[in-house]
Amino acid sequence: MRIARFERNGTVGYGQVEGDSITPIEGDLFGERRPSGQAVPLSSVKLLAPVVPRLILAVALNYPSHLGTAVASPRPELFVKGLNTLANPDDQIVMPAGCARVDYEGEMVAVIGRRCSRVSVEEALNYVFGYTCGNDVSARDWQRGDMQWFRGKGCDQFGPIGPWIETGIDPTNTWLATRLNGEEVQRCNTGEMINSVAETVSFASRVVALEPGDIIFMGTSGQPRALKPGDVVEVDVEGVGVLRNSFIADPNPMPWVDTRPDLRPARVPA
Amino acid sequence: MRIARFERNGTVGYGQVEGDSITPIEGDLFGERRPSGQAVPLSSVKLLAPVVPRLILAVALNYPSHLGTAVASPRPELFVKGLNTLANPDDQIVMPAGCARVDYEGEMVAVIGRRCSRVSVEEALNYVFGYTCGNDVSARDWQRGDMQWFRGKGCDQFGPIGPWIETGIDPTNTWLATRLNGEEVQRCNTGEMINSVAETVSFASRVVALEPGDIIFMGTSGQPRALKPGDVVEVDVEGVGVLRNSFIADPNPMPWVDTRPDLRPARVPA
Repeated sequence: MRIARFERNGTVGYGQVEGDSITPIEGDLFGERRPSGQAVPLSSVKLLAPVVPRLILAVALNYPSHLGTAVASPRPELFVKGLNTLANPDDQIVMPAGCARVDYEGEMVAVIGRRCSRVSVEEALNYVFGYTCGNDVSARDWQRGDMQWFRGKGCDQFGPIGPWIETGIDPTNTWLATRLNGEEVQRCNTGEMINSVAETVSFASRVVALEPGDIIFMGTSGQPRALKPGDVVEVDVEGVGVLRNSFIADPNPMPWVDTRPDLRPARVPA
Repeated sequence: MRIARFERNGTVGYGQVEGDSITPIEGDLFGERRPSGQAVPLSSVKLLAPVVPRLILAVALNYPSHLGTAVASPRPELFVKGLNTLANPDDQIVMPAGCARVDYEGEMVAVIGRRCSRVSVEEALNYVFGYTCGNDVSARDWQRGDMQWFRGKGCDQFGPIGPWIETGIDPTNTWLATRLNGEEVQRCNTGEMINSVAETVSFASRVVALEPGDIIFMGTSGQPRALKPGDVVEVDVEGVGVLRNSFIADPNPMPWVDTRPDLRPARVPA
């Protein structure tokens, strides 16, 4: 089953996607829901990030091929992305002025469906509603130079998700591909994850109580490339669909001159 | 002016605090607002976290006395706390099972009042609505062992704020004291900050667009002590008021046995 969030004629709602049409639904997205209108063509709606989370988590270094010289951690290395990072399918993502290198990171994203605190690995998948595609966009030079990854992972729009949530896939054996301007630049199977979805949800639920709608970016594979303005990135999760976003130069660079130079970002473009 | 969020007779709203009474207000908290009812005694309401932010930021290592062996950064080292960390004045804060050391961190918290993107240091304070007290509760052993501070700073309730927002204080010269079970364990002046509120807001606004209601924990001074169940922490910001929270042992420890030992938190209490 595919659940999308969409805008049509100025109204935002949820709907169930079947083929090329979408049927509005009402009720509890994660519980009792029912059709609330006629199916309309998918092409007549604007798809939005399929859920508005309360908490966005992401796992660092979760595929062997992404480790580089790093050593695998014995646990999921989780970090928080602010809600400002949320972005929709097809949104143009701004590459922030002052950042020298922006990378894509194609990922599978787990969507929590039921409140869970301290669930075991064996039970954890019962609390996952479904999966979507995500791009854990990264300001790599900022990420490397800062103690924490607020700038590196937390810029506005740095977490697009979509195009919808698919409830029927196997998170332990799903192909994930990322295309940059149509060229496949990343391919992996979610079975390669160092910490599986079940292990990661269980681990996170020992630290916080996860709520319906919370999401977890499950990590990227390989070594992502740097983006340039005009690039288009597609994250394609088998059985889910394709999340597509373009990247643009910052239309609003610094409008003023710094008076305290050491507060200036490390590399401001000339 | 003091603005509080409160619950009374099952209804949540905002109010203006004067002396021992609070007058409900309606309209835009950060813009046009007006009284919407009669003043009632403060003692008749439950004070809540005075704002529900979209984004919670915090500054690491922002007082010389907190640096220890660390070197001051040339910029505010910001990190994100999830909305799950929000807690109210007087809430009992749970010390998570599996964490060996929980510390208080008494801090001044800036509340953004107007959307701001790329504001200069000189303009930044025009975008701050006011200030409240905060406790950037920290799971110190988790913080030290993890790459990122999701566990170290992001547990449920690890960011209580309150008791209200005071709009009329000078963030460059305000005394801040923290008391542990009545004993003063921290005292500093906000003028000691390595990065001032103005510098931090300006810097953050170069990375993200800050929205009304977003908050920034401005960092702690000195070397905080470890807490034990039953402890009471008071954060007292001159001209604002006192945020008071007690700490309790986790009433709901792990209900199941791990099947993957390396996923077990580093130190589970015996």
